[in-house]
Amino acid sequence: MTIAAKPKAGLEDIVATSSAICYLDGDRGVLAYCGYDIHDLARHATFEEVCYLLWHHRLPTRAELGDLQSELAADSSPNANHRKAVRLTAQFGSLVATMGRVHAGGGPIQPDPVLGHAANFLYMLTGERPAGLATHAFDVALVLHADHELNASTFAARVSAATLTDIHSAIVGAVGALKGPLHGGANADVMRMLLDIGATAAPEKVEEFVRAKLARKEKIPGFGHRVYHTEDPRATHLRQMSRDLGQRAGQTEWFEISQRIEALVKGEKNLNPNVDFYSASTYYTLGIPIELFTPIFAVSRVSGWTAHVLEQYANNRLIRPRAEYIGPEYPQRYRPLDSR
Amino acid sequence: MTIAAKPKAGLEDIVATSSAICYLDGDRGVLAYCGYDIHDLARHATFEEVCYLLWHHRLPTRAELGDLQSELAADSSPNANHRKAVRLTAQFGSLVATMGRVHAGGGPIQPDPVLGHAANFLYMLTGERPAGLATHAFDVALVLHADHELNASTFAARVSAATLTDIHSAIVGAVGALKGPLHGGANADVMRMLLDIGATAAPEKVEEFVRAKLARKEKIPGFGHRVYHTEDPRATHLRQMSRDLGQRAGQTEWFEISQRIEALVKGEKNLNPNVDFYSASTYYTLGIPIELFTPIFAVSRVSGWTAHVLEQYANNRLIRPRAEYIGPEYPQRYRPLDSR
Repeated sequence: MTIAAKPKAGLEDIVATSSAICYLDGDRGVLAYCGYDIHDLARHATFEEVCYLLWHHRLPTRAELGDLQSELAADSSPNANHRKAVRLTAQFGSLVATMGRVHAGGGPIQPDPVLGHAANFLYMLTGERPAGLATHAFDVALVLHADHELNASTFAARVSAATLTDIHSAIVGAVGALKGPLHGGANADVMRMLLDIGATAAPEKVEEFVRAKLARKEKIPGFGHRVYHTEDPRATHLRQMSRDLGQRAGQTEWFEISQRIEALVKGEKNLNPNVDFYSASTYYTLGIPIELFTPIFAVSRVSGWTAHVLEQYANNRLIRPRAEYIGPEYPQRYRPLDSR
Repeated sequence: MTIAAKPKAGLEDIVATSSAICYLDGDRGVLAYCGYDIHDLARHATFEEVCYLLWHHRLPTRAELGDLQSELAADSSPNANHRKAVRLTAQFGSLVATMGRVHAGGGPIQPDPVLGHAANFLYMLTGERPAGLATHAFDVALVLHADHELNASTFAARVSAATLTDIHSAIVGAVGALKGPLHGGANADVMRMLLDIGATAAPEKVEEFVRAKLARKEKIPGFGHRVYHTEDPRATHLRQMSRDLGQRAGQTEWFEISQRIEALVKGEKNLNPNVDFYSASTYYTLGIPIELFTPIFAVSRVSGWTAHVLEQYANNRLIRPRAEYIGPEYPQRYRPLDSR
């Protein structure tokens, strides 16, 4: 056996598998699910259509979409792995919305079968049927977060699934990885930063805050991405949503402060906002509490995680790389306890 | 960005990280923890010494070992990540032993601080202080399973930890991966096969069973390994334990049947037994129920998982490989629902 030359740290640019789910071109700023450009999907598709696309690698007909919508709102279905993917996606939405509602002192609300997944989430969270723009904005956010190729949580799910463990175990592993501040935790960090700056901060205060943070060599959350060297195409839509929602709510401060931060970080560090940056102000303006930002990431990404687990099962090989050993030289002589 | 040429499936032979914990040479059949050969450790070291070695990269003095033993038996300690590693290792032992005891109708038993980790496990499981040979055999089994470089569950833990998620989340991910039949599940499969054959099966019956299984292109559980091309050095010790325990118990059938299977599979497929093959008859002869075989793997491997998570935190970079896209050609034209 020959071990290949050591790649860059973190498996950067190493192809770990082939996949028919997500096409990502970091140089051109392209993200596509099963060939469909994210811009088209964000403009036209619902999250349910995207779920179907990720799981079946094609868009649904009206009948297929109707079936899926019923299954998602019904929160139950039989046992094959495709069905488990649907059920997990239904349950993640109910679970996170209900967690938010109970935390705010309300009682659990059953999903309404006439509402879509995005509207149902907001309904179960707030107890009120959401306005059209709120539903649309949240649906777009779900579409944008649904999959992103071999991001750390999806890769964790595939490593786990490749032992042929059950789909629930693989998804639990992904949730644990998403929890990390270098992954799903960043959108909450962005909002905490905005709140630190304060809604009424003057432009020069914003500039002062950002420059002081950069001077301390601290990272500005929500900027830069291992894969994209251009604008993250998801940020394009979330920026728009953040602005539209702010205008509708008569509360444009968070969008304006975000724009100022974007310009400063672009000028100083040449970094672009990633998916987390404008999702923070988008969610906040929708009235979603910060502690739900990362769980909401999971509400969407569970569609991609399950798609990847299904793909892994369909053509499996154990994922088992090697390590370069850099520890004490082999062989060390074992000395009995009392002569150490 | 250039994506490196596609490696073999499953990241085979790809170096995913450097590590000071486990040295593995599949051609020479060498396994060493922090430079110490597994044969020396199996002969001389206790599991507690091995835990200390994995976490600190050197063997403990008598005082350090005494402290660790107290912490493991006390099942509590403060909050830093090193302490969490100790506590998780203590808790995994208590949890699995108590689960086995409750399942068999008994009540939970507190660990006895004068016993070592292996003896305490058997004590909490059975309610009886174990014999010296049983304790030694189980201790050796724990030593042999403690770490194995970037096996799938350890790699899952490191992928998760590299998002800087908490150590418990990373370990939960590893447990989910270990659960898979291509990983931790194999030792239970070996024992089910032995029971299928039956303790009283004549040699020609064993041969018939194995040849029929091979003729059906079924895998014989407990044979072959991605990394080792020689005998798995762990199997050497477990074969011995299986024989010694069988002789002591006056119940050598499982060992003898295992030996026959080994000779047949070696002759037919040129495959060597791996760590799972003789651990099956070893555990069974110790009176451990089959449903605990995989959880016991975790009781030992949690020491290695936590060592790898600590190492990942100490020099972190997000683990985020790429996929080769093989799905529908980009860009697909988005057609409205009613024209599909």
